[in-house]
Amino acid sequence: MELPKALAFDVFGTVVDWRSSIAREAAPVLARLGRGDIDPHAFADGWRARYQPAMARIRDGERGFVILDVLHREMLEDLLTSLDVDPSALGEDGLADLTRAWHRLDPWPDAVAGLTRLKARFPIVTLSNGNIALMLAMARRAGLPWDAILGAEVSGHYKPDPQAYLATARALAIAPGELCLVAAHHSDLGAARGCGLMTAYVDRPMEYGGRPAPDRHFAADWEWSVASLEELADALGA
Amino acid sequence: MELPKALAFDVFGTVVDWRSSIAREAAPVLARLGRGDIDPHAFADGWRARYQPAMARIRDGERGFVILDVLHREMLEDLLTSLDVDPSALGEDGLADLTRAWHRLDPWPDAVAGLTRLKARFPIVTLSNGNIALMLAMARRAGLPWDAILGAEVSGHYKPDPQAYLATARALAIAPGELCLVAAHHSDLGAARGCGLMTAYVDRPMEYGGRPAPDRHFAADWEWSVASLEELADALGA
Repeated sequence: MELPKALAFDVFGTVVDWRSSIAREAAPVLARLGRGDIDPHAFADGWRARYQPAMARIRDGERGFVILDVLHREMLEDLLTSLDVDPSALGEDGLADLTRAWHRLDPWPDAVAGLTRLKARFPIVTLSNGNIALMLAMARRAGLPWDAILGAEVSGHYKPDPQAYLATARALAIAPGELCLVAAHHSDLGAARGCGLMTAYVDRPMEYGGRPAPDRHFAADWEWSVASLEELADALGA
Repeated sequence: MELPKALAFDVFGTVVDWRSSIAREAAPVLARLGRGDIDPHAFADGWRARYQPAMARIRDGERGFVILDVLHREMLEDLLTSLDVDPSALGEDGLADLTRAWHRLDPWPDAVAGLTRLKARFPIVTLSNGNIALMLAMARRAGLPWDAILGAEVSGHYKPDPQAYLATARALAIAPGELCLVAAHHSDLGAARGCGLMTAYVDRPMEYGGRPAPDRHFAADWEWSVASLEELADALGA
């Protein structure tokens, strides 16, 4: 198998565990609101469930590009309202801080060691829908050693829009076929393959708390398929 | 003095020694062309002298944005022609490789240690006119530990266009006044101050081989003024 010239990573779910981290951040906030009846993991799921619809309006051209921090805030207010919580009960600072919970996601246990090994052999960049400030804060907190933060804000397009993948290869001055997307999501990998990228699947069975992934019907025979980023480093000789 | 929330770095001349590095790369090429009569440092100066005019056409709106790798290639062909060298004598591969000499610039002796200390306390990003692939290759080769590669290609504007500075603060989700530009060039610092940024001057007396800097008449009382990035780390308590 020909090796890629660079690796581009999906981040939410692939490199970091958004569900446990958002639940950890939401729990004390819900308790302060007197809403200990809301399961923090269900709260995380509800927030994430609003992710694709929010981006779809931008991908479909109904709305100009805005960064994910803005969408996360809108999704949060919508989620709170759906739970009969008046968003203003959190105050502006509280809403802004909880929105920034997405900056404070913990890496999967293998992520930092795997990325560090991969970086020794390949340029490693983000190809996430997260915005630059979010990715930067997350990387500094979690110790993710990215060579560059690319993705939606740099390309001006949300995955799975083909421009998100193609612009990332172009920024790296390589052909799409020389770039490998690393992701835990079959839908993301399918879109990348449609643009000519190489693909590496990372199995993250706990991303949805053990429930099946919503995009499992997109499963395909990817160039690499591994259970961790350390295993990917093994597979790529890094 | 209030401390900045992030540091944005000019790179060519401030972090890396473009003149010695380009001379080192050009010397064997000139020798192979039978043009050992051309001083490699003068060759480097001639290449760099075409930098501002090439960007000026884009800043003035005469030409759409193209990345610096493209400009470096055009400047190289123009320089060779001015020296009575037919660019085609280098062949396409030779021209492409010499253009990428700008990806292989050596850091000043204090740069890696200084950046490493500064990164422990502040996010450190590039705010260079160099494109993403150039900055990424340089960083990997030289060990420059950037948190993110921002600047001209991400903002779509070349310094000293105000949008280059303002877009960088915006991408970091901070106010312009919370961002500090670190640069060896008074003209760059003056433009950053005009946008409300904090400013830190790094003296690099050997950038032009010991000759005075062309923008020395823009000298001003910057927030910080140091002789190395290690000294900047001292000054900022990093």
